[in-house]
Amino acid sequence: MLKINNPTREEWPSVIARPTQQLEDIEVTVSEIFQDVRNNGDLAVKKYTAIFDGVELNDMYVSKKEREFAEANLSDNFKSAILKAKQNIEKFHVSQKSNFKIIETVIGVKCWQEKKPIQKIGLYIPGGTAPLFSTVLMLAIPAQIAGCQDIVLCSPPDKNGKIADEIIYAAQLCGCTKVLKVGGIQAVAGMTFGTKQIPKVYKIFGPGNQFVTVAKQLSTKYGMAIDMPAGPSELLIIADDSANPKYVASDLLSQAEHGTDSQVILVANSMNFIDCVEKEIYLQLARLPRRDIARKSINNSKLILCNDMDTSLDLVNSYGPEHLIICTENNDFYVNGIINAGSVFIGDYSPESAGDYATGTNHTLPTNGFSKAYSGVNLDSFTKSITFQEISKQGLINIGETIEIMAEAEGLEAHKNAVTIRLNDLKL
Amino acid sequence: MLKINNPTREEWPSVIARPTQQLEDIEVTVSEIFQDVRNNGDLAVKKYTAIFDGVELNDMYVSKKEREFAEANLSDNFKSAILKAKQNIEKFHVSQKSNFKIIETVIGVKCWQEKKPIQKIGLYIPGGTAPLFSTVLMLAIPAQIAGCQDIVLCSPPDKNGKIADEIIYAAQLCGCTKVLKVGGIQAVAGMTFGTKQIPKVYKIFGPGNQFVTVAKQLSTKYGMAIDMPAGPSELLIIADDSANPKYVASDLLSQAEHGTDSQVILVANSMNFIDCVEKEIYLQLARLPRRDIARKSINNSKLILCNDMDTSLDLVNSYGPEHLIICTENNDFYVNGIINAGSVFIGDYSPESAGDYATGTNHTLPTNGFSKAYSGVNLDSFTKSITFQEISKQGLINIGETIEIMAEAEGLEAHKNAVTIRLNDLKL
Repeated sequence: MLKINNPTREEWPSVIARPTQQLEDIEVTVSEIFQDVRNNGDLAVKKYTAIFDGVELNDMYVSKKEREFAEANLSDNFKSAILKAKQNIEKFHVSQKSNFKIIETVIGVKCWQEKKPIQKIGLYIPGGTAPLFSTVLMLAIPAQIAGCQDIVLCSPPDKNGKIADEIIYAAQLCGCTKVLKVGGIQAVAGMTFGTKQIPKVYKIFGPGNQFVTVAKQLSTKYGMAIDMPAGPSELLIIADDSANPKYVASDLLSQAEHGTDSQVILVANSMNFIDCVEKEIYLQLARLPRRDIARKSINNSKLILCNDMDTSLDLVNSYGPEHLIICTENNDFYVNGIINAGSVFIGDYSPESAGDYATGTNHTLPTNGFSKAYSGVNLDSFTKSITFQEISKQGLINIGETIEIMAEAEGLEAHKNAVTIRLNDLKL
Repeated sequence: MLKINNPTREEWPSVIARPTQQLEDIEVTVSEIFQDVRNNGDLAVKKYTAIFDGVELNDMYVSKKEREFAEANLSDNFKSAILKAKQNIEKFHVSQKSNFKIIETVIGVKCWQEKKPIQKIGLYIPGGTAPLFSTVLMLAIPAQIAGCQDIVLCSPPDKNGKIADEIIYAAQLCGCTKVLKVGGIQAVAGMTFGTKQIPKVYKIFGPGNQFVTVAKQLSTKYGMAIDMPAGPSELLIIADDSANPKYVASDLLSQAEHGTDSQVILVANSMNFIDCVEKEIYLQLARLPRRDIARKSINNSKLILCNDMDTSLDLVNSYGPEHLIICTENNDFYVNGIINAGSVFIGDYSPESAGDYATGTNHTLPTNGFSKAYSGVNLDSFTKSITFQEISKQGLINIGETIEIMAEAEGLEAHKNAVTIRLNDLKL
């Protein structure tokens, strides 16, 4: 593993650089499929499902029978775990509700802001060997709490035209109103333009491969809102000798098993600790089922020695990790100083996987340094604010002249006139 | 003016359709300028300033002398109006601050969310004949309240290499840290990639012509966050016989004078009222300096008769207006029922222009139906949330098994192992 000893600030850009993704090549494909779905609707969607998922589906909807089968087919143990996670996610996201307050900025001028649910949202859940049902919880639960009316879930079918029981069950449990067996670019295009079977939505959430990433980006050109831009998942751990190398190694590996492009970084203040973690990584790695994937991303990972606390905090903020674990003697220093991160895990008993599933926080988080400008998904992601203002006669008398002067200075006489015409009546 | 009598729901899509903007043609130009600025930095920026703004500038920064001159050059009357508006905008946006609360989702599992300022933001302020200094207030004031570190303002210079005194003064007053004389595509590209003179930022705010709109959209491909997609400004008024036709006409005209592409719609429940408003519009129009612009957008505007209250509310929500004025006998019905709108003005004495300048609400709002998924600019636009979790030993014992079961069901053994390895120690 690459060990870097107290890099200079000049070296930081290369030390914390993410591997660049080449997405230009697939933009043409994505754009073509969008046009096809826009022009030909379900006919085009079905064609791409046949090509990419290897199955011909006339009805994309998950049937009542499939829903019943999914529920019956899953173990009580599993269902009980999902319910416990759901409770925690609910509790945390319900706590994010806010009441509006009316502010009288000037006597007679009342202003307030109210949050309203986005009425139609789309959730994209990837398919593949491991069914990511936890992402269904992370997106559908806050959507339901926010009061979204239509919660449309799209997930690609397997070769038998099925989607995983776990996903069907979670979708049902968390109030998805429509569950469709459609994936990839065609799913995103379908939710963007609407087809006979796929409802048009106002905002699309959820992870996906590079095709889905580019499709979500392209959908914004057609007026779609998206949760955030996506990139490979990443974890940075800041630790010192007080941390347990065995735990730190297990956390780095839990990130590394996501994919060969996962980003794993350790920042520590002792080379001895770094060596211990490295040894532990290789011990644990050998026993993992996904060791081939994990090994590749571990080989690209970085172990950074940084002896100064302020510098290490700056380095972390410059990187802006999706996940940040803090395991040091002075956790408060880092907790108080962190500005750019998605989700932060504090102390020896807060592994990243706890937040991935069950603490209650959301696991849909900004990667690729996007934490510098984006929040992870939270209750507000499913709402938008409307501002209101109600001005009394006295209120308009109080602020009228200010408006008149400013409108005139911007050369907008009709703006001024809308006030003057009222003030003239009031001054009679 | 076009009068529409109780349109059927089938007719709604055409009744509320916005004129489509053809932006594809300019995408190539925008993309070329982006690549040029990316590769050649300030050299390219200066070239485009010479081409588009007709002036050669070596130093893009507004000088100390220019700042002093701007302040000295503006009337006390004007400065006092700006200060009053600033106070109101500050008061309303400060009220949007929120404290974080720690939620114990399960005993020993503490979760919370903290808002942090986006450290580097860019404000784009259009140039032209009317200096939009009010937008400087609307963007820089909340940025300063949020605690943004670098607040970079870009605005195109005139042929003499100047930007308006009003903009320079407002920028200084509201804490912009850098003010640059650069506009258009080259300004957005500069803030996206960073040049020697133009700082790279994390999020770009502000209005602009179609070139700026496409440039902002393109910047998201390079990892930039933007406030929202833009479109022509719009106003919908819902009124009945209790409203004053003279006031309603003045509000419709204040919107219409923005540009020939402005959208102006009146929904009312009486044809007599509609006729009165129409008459008033033409009376007032004749006296406006910008009557040629206003007449064009008034000619494209719609006066819709809708006799049923529920239907008219549905129609408004289907349109999702940027600005909505409610002047009826039962304002509460509409205030409580509105879901999709940017900013709402209630009653006879709340003209849109009050919110454009001085009530305290923000005037940077979602157009083009984007209110279905986007908020207007508010304090949160300048922050992002980080989630935190701190799990005690007992906490991990409480949720550990849930995580293990879920991680295993997703086929992620290393995720499970990060918990198991700790639980094994705790169970000793």
